[in-house]
Amino acid sequence: MKHKRTVLAPWWDLISLSVVALTGLLATGVLLADDAAATPDMGLDTPLPSWNEGPAKQAITAFVEQVTTPGSADFVLPADRIATFDNDGTLWPSHPMYTQVAFALDRVKALAPQHPGWKTTEPFKSVLTGDMSGVAASGEKGLLELVMATHTGMSTAEFEKTVTDWFKTAKHPKFNRLYTELAYQPMLELLDYLREYGFTTYIVSGGGVEFMRPMTMAVYGIPSQQVIGSSVKTQYQVVNGKPELMRKPTINFIDDKQGKPVGINQFIGKRPIAAFGNSDGDREMLEWTGAGSGARLMMLVFHDDAQREYAYGPAEGLPDTKFGTFSQALMDEAKDKGWFIIRMKDDWKRIFAQSQ
Amino acid sequence: MKHKRTVLAPWWDLISLSVVALTGLLATGVLLADDAAATPDMGLDTPLPSWNEGPAKQAITAFVEQVTTPGSADFVLPADRIATFDNDGTLWPSHPMYTQVAFALDRVKALAPQHPGWKTTEPFKSVLTGDMSGVAASGEKGLLELVMATHTGMSTAEFEKTVTDWFKTAKHPKFNRLYTELAYQPMLELLDYLREYGFTTYIVSGGGVEFMRPMTMAVYGIPSQQVIGSSVKTQYQVVNGKPELMRKPTINFIDDKQGKPVGINQFIGKRPIAAFGNSDGDREMLEWTGAGSGARLMMLVFHDDAQREYAYGPAEGLPDTKFGTFSQALMDEAKDKGWFIIRMKDDWKRIFAQSQ
Repeated sequence: MKHKRTVLAPWWDLISLSVVALTGLLATGVLLADDAAATPDMGLDTPLPSWNEGPAKQAITAFVEQVTTPGSADFVLPADRIATFDNDGTLWPSHPMYTQVAFALDRVKALAPQHPGWKTTEPFKSVLTGDMSGVAASGEKGLLELVMATHTGMSTAEFEKTVTDWFKTAKHPKFNRLYTELAYQPMLELLDYLREYGFTTYIVSGGGVEFMRPMTMAVYGIPSQQVIGSSVKTQYQVVNGKPELMRKPTINFIDDKQGKPVGINQFIGKRPIAAFGNSDGDREMLEWTGAGSGARLMMLVFHDDAQREYAYGPAEGLPDTKFGTFSQALMDEAKDKGWFIIRMKDDWKRIFAQSQ
Repeated sequence: MKHKRTVLAPWWDLISLSVVALTGLLATGVLLADDAAATPDMGLDTPLPSWNEGPAKQAITAFVEQVTTPGSADFVLPADRIATFDNDGTLWPSHPMYTQVAFALDRVKALAPQHPGWKTTEPFKSVLTGDMSGVAASGEKGLLELVMATHTGMSTAEFEKTVTDWFKTAKHPKFNRLYTELAYQPMLELLDYLREYGFTTYIVSGGGVEFMRPMTMAVYGIPSQQVIGSSVKTQYQVVNGKPELMRKPTINFIDDKQGKPVGINQFIGKRPIAAFGNSDGDREMLEWTGAGSGARLMMLVFHDDAQREYAYGPAEGLPDTKFGTFSQALMDEAKDKGWFIIRMKDDWKRIFAQSQ
């Protein structure tokens, strides 16, 4: 059950820690920081217009030139230009809680009428009364109950519809915009830029694969078959003559830490030549990517922009929020191994696309 | 342990049944039937030149026109043109034994010097002395031992090299050609034809995914990320400073029968619109494919050509070889549900590409 601890720990921590953050934000009605004040260079011929000139942008363009220039010693065939991206905290915010946890809490509230017993049973009772410290007190076991109660027991088709509907209206508490509008603009440009140069872009996330797939094409241009994530077991069964895949309350795979190289190998069967993350959970993915021969690009998004997004990470004395932890050890290893740090504050002209 | 039985049963049966077939063929030195005698229409503008005109070819071309003609009521966007193919018996022969079993037996012989105890321990002893009935007597437990002893305990990189090397020299006992030269020419044309019309082609096989991947691109034009198969658990570890994925002697996933829709959903996240198989193990994949809305194409290769390849299948009074079984129930269901039967004898002008 080592894996269970691995995956539950961050979820658990974020629940307990988000008590303060979430209630505080909701109470004060903090709105979107004015990121539109920046004047992005939108010249069509300029790659990565939302990136400031600097070591991060330079590392990207130099690497792409290196592996795509025919005749270059480090030339890589298009079929092998695999780039993997963590999702939460790398492509969109992971604060004040993972988007999937916000979904789980909303689903408990939506499903409560069908479960009268939840009113008096923890951890559901605490979720329904908004008592986040009560949720926290239920421990890992409680969180697992919340996840399984909201993510399993239905067909994959039903779950997909529920997730799709949720993303149509669910808004981020700080930015007051749909979660699907909060992909980082510089990362969207990076995804496009890599694809333009023949890369295949994958998401490799600790999040649930069937939670992400309903939005990845629209938000990131990444189709379902290029989304690798955690999963529950599914069971094929024919109900009223109709075949269905039922989502069972059993963990199938945890795509975090050591699980990321395992998932990459299982789904892609090739080693990436570029990998992007933002936390200790991405360490092994970057290590695995970097251990291949030839040119490699490993990058970590560092959240140091409290005004436009969030600032956390003990590596630079920022708060250790426990969710999406960027530890001192990771920062040291990055320096040692030549993994590039993307500093939101310095490297990104803007964080999100224009407000709509 | 239901899954274990499911996967082991066919392997096991083929081992026991192939005793007669294999020893007979090796003894008599049966060689390749002269499939080159056929005169394929190789006109560049004619699709599927190795297919005879008939209901199978017509079903394919009509379906492709239906889903790819803009404005057609059944038009399908290229991103959703997913076609899945079983491998053994559908894209290449599964007789006299699955290619992967031939590999396992060869590996036992190759590894024997490092395992002196095998000389006196079943089922290894029987493999080493060529006593296939002794192998059979070791039962499912014995077969699992053979598979785990030859497929696990090394890194994924080492296993890939071993498989790649094996495919360079291993020959099919009946046709006396490399296994990699025995893809069915009509199916290769079908794969190309579908891709030409914007389909993405996947292999969905009960065989081991890491056994297939080293050859699927060269043989079928199918890259590793489009190969779904059975797998063992892998574990990420750093050995002498080098990260590796170690193949563990534990089954991770069995991609057969009900496992095929499960694997398709897990890896692709979309339902295929076309599926091709040849045995009872493909039944659920075809059922799952057919249960989607819009135009669908489900086809089963029926082996009725003893002269050019093999003839088996109780559906038409042919031998029930247990490996790649095409049962009467499957034939009945195919007729009932409009799944097309591809008859090797009638539908294919030739079986293999030209001899080299």
